[in-house]
Amino acid sequence: MAEKDPDVAAFWAWCKERAAKRGNMTLAETRESFDAEMARIPLADNVTTESLSFGSVPVEKITPATATPGKVLLYLHGGGHVFGSIKSHRHFVSRLAVATKATAYHIDYRLAPEHPYPAAIEDALVAYRAILDSGIAPADLIVGGESAGGNLAAALLLKLKDEKLPQPAGLYLLSPWLDMTTAAESYEKVGARDPMITREGIVGVALAYLGNQPDNPLASPVRADVAGLPPMLIQVGSEEVLLSDSTTFANNAAMTGIDVSLRVWAGMPHAWPLFHPFLRAGLPAIDEVGAWMRKRLGII
Amino acid sequence: MAEKDPDVAAFWAWCKERAAKRGNMTLAETRESFDAEMARIPLADNVTTESLSFGSVPVEKITPATATPGKVLLYLHGGGHVFGSIKSHRHFVSRLAVATKATAYHIDYRLAPEHPYPAAIEDALVAYRAILDSGIAPADLIVGGESAGGNLAAALLLKLKDEKLPQPAGLYLLSPWLDMTTAAESYEKVGARDPMITREGIVGVALAYLGNQPDNPLASPVRADVAGLPPMLIQVGSEEVLLSDSTTFANNAAMTGIDVSLRVWAGMPHAWPLFHPFLRAGLPAIDEVGAWMRKRLGII
Repeated sequence: MAEKDPDVAAFWAWCKERAAKRGNMTLAETRESFDAEMARIPLADNVTTESLSFGSVPVEKITPATATPGKVLLYLHGGGHVFGSIKSHRHFVSRLAVATKATAYHIDYRLAPEHPYPAAIEDALVAYRAILDSGIAPADLIVGGESAGGNLAAALLLKLKDEKLPQPAGLYLLSPWLDMTTAAESYEKVGARDPMITREGIVGVALAYLGNQPDNPLASPVRADVAGLPPMLIQVGSEEVLLSDSTTFANNAAMTGIDVSLRVWAGMPHAWPLFHPFLRAGLPAIDEVGAWMRKRLGII
Repeated sequence: MAEKDPDVAAFWAWCKERAAKRGNMTLAETRESFDAEMARIPLADNVTTESLSFGSVPVEKITPATATPGKVLLYLHGGGHVFGSIKSHRHFVSRLAVATKATAYHIDYRLAPEHPYPAAIEDALVAYRAILDSGIAPADLIVGGESAGGNLAAALLLKLKDEKLPQPAGLYLLSPWLDMTTAAESYEKVGARDPMITREGIVGVALAYLGNQPDNPLASPVRADVAGLPPMLIQVGSEEVLLSDSTTFANNAAMTGIDVSLRVWAGMPHAWPLFHPFLRAGLPAIDEVGAWMRKRLGII
């Protein structure tokens, strides 16, 4: 019962074509191809970018001309923990930064299978600590991520609890992957509608990242005790095999008394704002995030 | 892990006091006492009200000075299907109308146990048909309700499917009661935190309304096929024994491809915007509804 979107049919066809092409690629070729395709999308207007590093972790800092000093987004890209990079996501992170009027940092965390769990979480933690050490207060910082980056964002916040570090002001999750067991309702109810992701694909990347321990709460945050996490915005498309990851995590957070905004966008596929040049509904979705982040950060 | 709200502790104490007082009241006294208490809360500024009827159903029409002609909210009050009225809810409905810049209708549907299921749904359907018959397009109409009124609002939309009548532009549910089985997760996880509603209370009003058939999908819409329902906003407090009603219904709607906004307000009790003079978080919650309804209705 998805709503009709004029862009979606064309995007569906493109996804099929791309999947067929990728089927014959090595992982190295997939990484390169994804980076090259996404890097064609221009950055938002009026931002400056700077390459730096936090320890051994490569970082890009994106500063909009309109950024409010001292307000920060730490963003973690997606790609199943096996691909994706600063190159593939900088257009999207620049849009988020402009919509939020904040400075954004995003990082090249280490990827599986070369660097399996928990390497990515360690890198995210290095970045989080570095931002705090630079003088940013936790109340002025939001952590976000999409898909496997949402997995990492949630895992980072759970890790902060273990490490007795302060939580950020908010958690933004776009189409997060929060359950590596592939046992959820949406695999049955939505799987056939999802043009991008299959159960087989998820099983594969879960194995590459984690091996045979999908119940680990730092890899499957739907299994974690989320008490103490900050207010969260979860955006998800209704046409996603990962839909239950969002609804279950929202439910769990609500039950522990956390402020939750769950936005299910009808007819949208996985991580659609990332593909906003093809799926125009991506831009209002980015506006929605921006409004939420500005409110959390006290930006007018 | 509820967030601290300066008003909540006082409201908690008031709830306890009120519950103790009501424990010795007849149903007639409870109805009168609730109406009298709530009727003390002033209406929003700059509205005109008019008493009318749709057939045998008493109606109040509330028109803000700023109302956009032809845009309508049909609101169904709560009260466990056994109390509540135009008198008790007119302050809240007037606030919703002003926040939405639309005309609101709310009704005295028949109450249980004198008029059990499906009398209330029949009355709501009479009102819905009358509004359409007056020339309002479904795309210019939102149906809303809180608690048992949310139950009724969802049931009305399910009934529209049966009757092959058009759906409205949106469904607004505040702290809806959508599952009469009392078997949900939040009874265990949140029950002890809820200052207003107990499982025993829910069992009692479910029996009064419905008798022993809590699985009936028109009384427990979490059991219904919701495909074809319009976009929905669900607002719920994290301190509600009815929290699962919201998260489950949101999940079910998402799985069928419906646009869903679920807003869990941390630290808030059942139907808090109704009590906005005591719980100041009620007013921003009403603003949130207004923004959502204006967007659905195309009001600038």
